[in-house]
Amino acid sequence: MDRPAFIWQRRVGFGDCDPARIAYTGRIPDFALEAIDAFWEHILSGTNWFRMNVDQGIGTPFVHMEMDFRAPITPRAPLFCHVRPAPPGNASVTFHVEGAQADTVCFTSKFVCVFVDAASLKKIPIPDPIRAALAAAGPAPV
Amino acid sequence: MDRPAFIWQRRVGFGDCDPARIAYTGRIPDFALEAIDAFWEHILSGTNWFRMNVDQGIGTPFVHMEMDFRAPITPRAPLFCHVRPAPPGNASVTFHVEGAQADTVCFTSKFVCVFVDAASLKKIPIPDPIRAALAAAGPAPV
Amino acid sequence: MDRPAFIWQRRVGFGDCDPARIAYTGRIPDFALEAIDAFWEHILSGTNWFRMNVDQGIGTPFVHMEMDFRAPITPRAPLFCHVRPAPPGNASVTFHVEGAQADTVCFTSKFVCVFVDAASLKKIPIPDPIRAALAAAGPAPV
Amino acid sequence: MDRPAFIWQRRVGFGDCDPARIAYTGRIPDFALEAIDAFWEHILSGTNWFRMNVDQGIGTPFVHMEMDFRAPITPRAPLFCHVRPAPPGNASVTFHVEGAQADTVCFTSKFVCVFVDAASLKKIPIPDPIRAALAAAGPAPV
Repeated sequence: MDRPAFIWQRRVGFGDCDPARIAYTGRIPDFALEAIDAFWEHILSGTNWFRMNVDQGIGTPFVHMEMDFRAPITPRAPLFCHVRPAPPGNASVTFHVEGAQADTVCFTSKFVCVFVDAASLKKIPIPDPIRAALAAAGPAPV
Repeated sequence: MDRPAFIWQRRVGFGDCDPARIAYTGRIPDFALEAIDAFWEHILSGTNWFRMNVDQGIGTPFVHMEMDFRAPITPRAPLFCHVRPAPPGNASVTFHVEGAQADTVCFTSKFVCVFVDAASLKKIPIPDPIRAALAAAGPAPV
Repeated sequence: MDRPAFIWQRRVGFGDCDPARIAYTGRIPDFALEAIDAFWEHILSGTNWFRMNVDQGIGTPFVHMEMDFRAPITPRAPLFCHVRPAPPGNASVTFHVEGAQADTVCFTSKFVCVFVDAASLKKIPIPDPIRAALAAAGPAPV
Repeated sequence: MDRPAFIWQRRVGFGDCDPARIAYTGRIPDFALEAIDAFWEHILSGTNWFRMNVDQGIGTPFVHMEMDFRAPITPRAPLFCHVRPAPPGNASVTFHVEGAQADTVCFTSKFVCVFVDAASLKKIPIPDPIRAALAAAGPAPV
């Protein structure tokens, strides 16, 4: 059975919306990415993408994303992004991120990132402490 | 004596930062604007810029901004924006917004907006309920 | 045989990049969206998303996007986005957008939008003049 | 007499605009900054902020900005940003940037940056080749 998702709450601002008066499509992937960054920060005791890159020389560039947009997002309610990592590969992690407002699912999405050495951009195995934190946070083994 | 400022807390993300590894200058005015939008939401029982514009036909375009940048902003700590409105004019409001991280002031700034009819963009006096809420939230009379 | 793609050239700025010193993932979908907006403007004699929405009451919200990131994007060269619409459905259009820098493909992507009445957000058939412009610009019939 | 300003032309997109159907205030400082980055690229044979930082270890953080907003910016016309550097100080440069659409001035602004060593963020004198390029591009001596 899955452990509960990590939930990231975010205010939707006036500047996130476009003349159609809904959050601009081009902003929505970043909502999901912010949630993934906050997920790392949460499970790694404060180590977010910035600290991984700048302090630890580790990068996690994305190689794939896909999103289904089901309902408009507006500044009428906070946005809740539910982050669920899939069981990690050797060097890659897949995240499922679902965005909801006022109990309506606004988007579902999938993001795949790869661990790399930040200087060379060469792929590396997921570092052990990160793998352990993911295992503790992610879906329980059957 | 002044009433306490409204404080808006914001996560600084990886995507807010540039290759110099500090928050990109072009993002920082928006941090202050988000804080002003949150201030309105706070003092107007949830009426933010979106609701003012879309539901009430009221706009508050800015006519002036100025910012002094004193220290870099990074994702190492949350950003706290302190919002203080000056005593309002007939149609305009001036905000002082100060951004701080880990007890260091990162920027001071001043933003001036004007109330307008959203459809015509013609200047209007600050609506009475908004003026009353500002008076309750803003600097106390001497 | 396909007609040539519409090509949208864009400067990549310092503020588009993150501390990993490549364009931030959360900005890249917007590069592709800008290219689609520029495509409409090109084939519709200047009618971009803004004019569609504000002047004509037509919206084109996206229901799906997917992107594969193949190479980092940097400010060392302009970005060229190649936009190719697929044959349209009754109410929906699929775009293939490929981004390239210095002859390297940086991303491939697919975006699906649906035509709606901007006020009600109800689906509408693609308006005839837009369908005709798409037919003239898009893949030739077999 | 002044030499002509450097002019940076930019498309204004749907995503640059907010529910008031004008460019969002929080995006406009970045339009001016993009123009300054393009100015450097122009006078330094392609050396933009990215190359200065990453290749040359030079940063130019901003210490001050101020903007007056005179007319709304929309996607109905391209935006032209006119960049004029003032005579440089020892370590700092002031830029005047004016944004115009369809012959209407939309904003006037002033940005002050300081040259620093990118690693230490310590102030440095403007490097000679940059000073020479500025002198060639900037206001002629009286």
